[in-house]
Amino acid sequence: MLPALIAVTRGHERTVIARASRRPIRSPSSLLVSFTSTPSRRQFLSSNPTSSSPAAAMEAGSSTPLPAPAVAQEVTDAKMAPKEKEVKLPSRPAAVQLKVPKGTRDWSGADMHVREHLFKTMNDIFKSHGGTPLDTPVFELKEILAGKYGEDSRLIYDLEDQGGELCSLRYDLTVPFARWLAMTGTQQVKRYQIAKVYRRDQPAIARGRFREFHQCDFDIAGVYDAMIPDSEILSIIVEVFEALQLDITIKLNHRKILDGLFTVAGVPAEKIRPISSAVDKLDKMPWAEVKKEMVEEKGLAEEVADQIGVYVQNKGTITEMIEYIQADAKLSADENIQAGLKDMGLLAKYLKAMEIDTKVSFDLSLARGLDYYTSLIFEVINQPPKETGDKKKSRKDDPASQVGSIAAGGRYDNLVGMYGKKQIPCVGISFGVDRIFTILAARNKKKEGARPVELDVYVMAAGSNSLLEERMAITRQLWKAGLRAEFQPKVKVKMAQQFKNAEGVPLGVILGEDEWAKGQVRLKVLNQGKDAEKDDGKLVEKDNIVAEVKKLLV
Amino acid sequence: MLPALIAVTRGHERTVIARASRRPIRSPSSLLVSFTSTPSRRQFLSSNPTSSSPAAAMEAGSSTPLPAPAVAQEVTDAKMAPKEKEVKLPSRPAAVQLKVPKGTRDWSGADMHVREHLFKTMNDIFKSHGGTPLDTPVFELKEILAGKYGEDSRLIYDLEDQGGELCSLRYDLTVPFARWLAMTGTQQVKRYQIAKVYRRDQPAIARGRFREFHQCDFDIAGVYDAMIPDSEILSIIVEVFEALQLDITIKLNHRKILDGLFTVAGVPAEKIRPISSAVDKLDKMPWAEVKKEMVEEKGLAEEVADQIGVYVQNKGTITEMIEYIQADAKLSADENIQAGLKDMGLLAKYLKAMEIDTKVSFDLSLARGLDYYTSLIFEVINQPPKETGDKKKSRKDDPASQVGSIAAGGRYDNLVGMYGKKQIPCVGISFGVDRIFTILAARNKKKEGARPVELDVYVMAAGSNSLLEERMAITRQLWKAGLRAEFQPKVKVKMAQQFKNAEGVPLGVILGEDEWAKGQVRLKVLNQGKDAEKDDGKLVEKDNIVAEVKKLLV
Repeated sequence: MLPALIAVTRGHERTVIARASRRPIRSPSSLLVSFTSTPSRRQFLSSNPTSSSPAAAMEAGSSTPLPAPAVAQEVTDAKMAPKEKEVKLPSRPAAVQLKVPKGTRDWSGADMHVREHLFKTMNDIFKSHGGTPLDTPVFELKEILAGKYGEDSRLIYDLEDQGGELCSLRYDLTVPFARWLAMTGTQQVKRYQIAKVYRRDQPAIARGRFREFHQCDFDIAGVYDAMIPDSEILSIIVEVFEALQLDITIKLNHRKILDGLFTVAGVPAEKIRPISSAVDKLDKMPWAEVKKEMVEEKGLAEEVADQIGVYVQNKGTITEMIEYIQADAKLSADENIQAGLKDMGLLAKYLKAMEIDTKVSFDLSLARGLDYYTSLIFEVINQPPKETGDKKKSRKDDPASQVGSIAAGGRYDNLVGMYGKKQIPCVGISFGVDRIFTILAARNKKKEGARPVELDVYVMAAGSNSLLEERMAITRQLWKAGLRAEFQPKVKVKMAQQFKNAEGVPLGVILGEDEWAKGQVRLKVLNQGKDAEKDDGKLVEKDNIVAEVKKLLV
Repeated sequence: MLPALIAVTRGHERTVIARASRRPIRSPSSLLVSFTSTPSRRQFLSSNPTSSSPAAAMEAGSSTPLPAPAVAQEVTDAKMAPKEKEVKLPSRPAAVQLKVPKGTRDWSGADMHVREHLFKTMNDIFKSHGGTPLDTPVFELKEILAGKYGEDSRLIYDLEDQGGELCSLRYDLTVPFARWLAMTGTQQVKRYQIAKVYRRDQPAIARGRFREFHQCDFDIAGVYDAMIPDSEILSIIVEVFEALQLDITIKLNHRKILDGLFTVAGVPAEKIRPISSAVDKLDKMPWAEVKKEMVEEKGLAEEVADQIGVYVQNKGTITEMIEYIQADAKLSADENIQAGLKDMGLLAKYLKAMEIDTKVSFDLSLARGLDYYTSLIFEVINQPPKETGDKKKSRKDDPASQVGSIAAGGRYDNLVGMYGKKQIPCVGISFGVDRIFTILAARNKKKEGARPVELDVYVMAAGSNSLLEERMAITRQLWKAGLRAEFQPKVKVKMAQQFKNAEGVPLGVILGEDEWAKGQVRLKVLNQGKDAEKDDGKLVEKDNIVAEVKKLLV
């Protein structure tokens, strides 16, 4: 059976969405394009099929320009395909599925410029805090990742066992950092890392959720006085989003306070982590459903769940929330809560000193999924902080909850000790670059952004002699000086085409045969509008061209 | 049997080289540290075992700080380990092998600074040529890579089949680029990509050969007049190594000329590629051995091999070599050679116009391993070009041949057509970043390099009140302005320790209680030597601190 094909033609691009099997075939030969006879509906393009956006195409799992249709297509049943059979690959396959793996993407053009801007912004801020860059391998020994991610471990990509060590693609940048700290015996460091991580999750490309995606981490490792490094991490968050001109709220909570709340509410010790996981879902589902999960799935008494409900729906400034907790005799008697409140009291002072206290919201519903956090936890949403005084408002009514977090982190004091004998306390933040990118790209689209200037000079020839070698000689002088320059790579050129190529380029160097013989070229400011078209520019000595160009570029 | 351990202690670092099995065990649990009872000799540290350099440690395959010795170590036979058995991983493994996978490394500290400098240099030059960045996923569909690398395909890393598509880690950046060109229907582009690629080869870390390593590619795709883009690529090579201050020679050859030589010498058509592969080994083995491979393994007649030997041991300037070939009646009659000479004639003109002709050597022994090159090929070695007139010298006597190439590339006009219906001719260069890094790092070590300035300002408190929140407030002002600043993250600080921390930092801001009360702080130029120790700096308004600091930094 041949697959149904939906072809989308637009300009040079031709996108074909093929009904592929949900579980692609282990084809015995890459020469064959194979499909199961029972394609899953879940692979169909659910959004507008005429959309040519990469996001929509990737959502469907394939962006597949058509292979030459002359090639035989064979229907193979995945389950029947001989797995172990040795197959010789053809030296030149005639047709392959032309796409990137599901949940991944290429980066180019305007997207790449936005991404580079994003990385440079973070990089500069990280350096301004005395951060030092770290880069780790894209895969780690499998056992390094084992037991760090709870039930999400099933999302880890493993490399095939081809003889040698068993390895997995990194799942985040925190575990490799902890491994590096333990391995090198580093006691104190501010390190940052901007790199891709890998999760075999269901992708949701339009919302910026990929299988290959970037994390951008800054962590402070070492023993310091309480809450000082934590405050610096929060300052970094504020600086990054100030630089990106994005309004944010940093939601804060404290694991010890949260655990204390659960204890006071009556949660048995062994149920604290599962109940915490349930609370973590409050930004995706309403309280009633979370309560149902606690009571029906996790066996919590209904009145205990109700008490949790009362507690975790509170938020406000740090000072407000400290007062709220202290006003409750049962809560303020709990030892864990007392320790947490002490931290939060220091934090309130330090954030005020740095004038970033207005950016945070102490939110008792924030729980964070990962097990390894030990005290302060935080999550950043793309929404300005509410006015004070609305702390009793239910979190499910908060539209920002739908957006999802664009950065998150916390303090993890026990992770490094899992690898070595020494505990090294750490606190850090991970920026969700792909989600931030999605927001920035949407904003840039609104601004109908002008093409960024990518060249300084375009080198042209006037007249019947196209002066190729002379254009090369001049352009090479400009390149040598680090200037951005191009010429039309043709032996015979025409003036009109050269001016067209130079659109958006600020300067032109124009070569004429007679002038060249006198050692001169013409330097002209381009793209000044119609009035200036007749401007012939300025004759300059060709040996001075670099200096003359630099004068005009300042 | 417990493994023999060699422990190396040096400062904070503790490196232990364990006798690990050549083929690490599929341990049923990551809780166990396992070793075979018959360790392979090849895993032993062959170089000086007291060396603590990461290269030496990695050469041995492991850099393994000791796990807590209390943990039971179990000897398991790899072949006996149950492969399919489901094993529950412990939620917190007590001890794991603390190392990076074989042939990979972490990047940090001074190495990372050198690498960043290298990347920035290339990036700027690529941009100056109107290059546009591309980033592709770290893994591709397996079938995209199939049939592109000849017998080296065995070195490709495959991802485990966990359900879904079969994928492999990229082996180079050229094939993903060709896939992207075909998929997007791009007709013309100058693209660059700096990224890691993966090869399951035997690593040789000291010589910069890794399993995870960087490539830095610039390619020009599209139909242009002959040899103009090729000349631009050669100009880029010259610019990159000029910027890095490395002497180089670019060895050139032309596939059509080489194939013509083989034909004229009497090589049957079907043996041209295998014989070309043998010639490619001339930079690693002497002619006698290459000849032996041709005659004994590949069944070439001895007199044919001898004739090849006469041809391929010639090199010189492009003009010299064109003359040499044209002077030979049999060679100059071959159609392939005529086409190649026409290209080389144009190239000679264009390189002269750009004044980079002195950097190249037309070397008939250059063959390049990859199948997909179609005309000009080149390889860069870290050695200045010889004086002209030594073209008859045998290549095996050339010490530069031992160094290996630090960049290589060529024209591949048929690769993109393997994916789509349209051929897009391309020419490109790939810089071997890790080898270049090895050379730069060795040079920097010789220079006994000064620590790079990583901070602009250190913020301190004088007197008994440590003024933590005030230090935070000032530092935050500096961060906000994009300045690089730190303070000692302690509640109680001492002057001496703060000055020690500030070593190498150009400026200090010193806070005193009385001055702060008047809204003032002290700004001081640090590290001026002993004479200036008593200099108290200058009192400035604290609200002006950013402007005052910027004045001094200019």
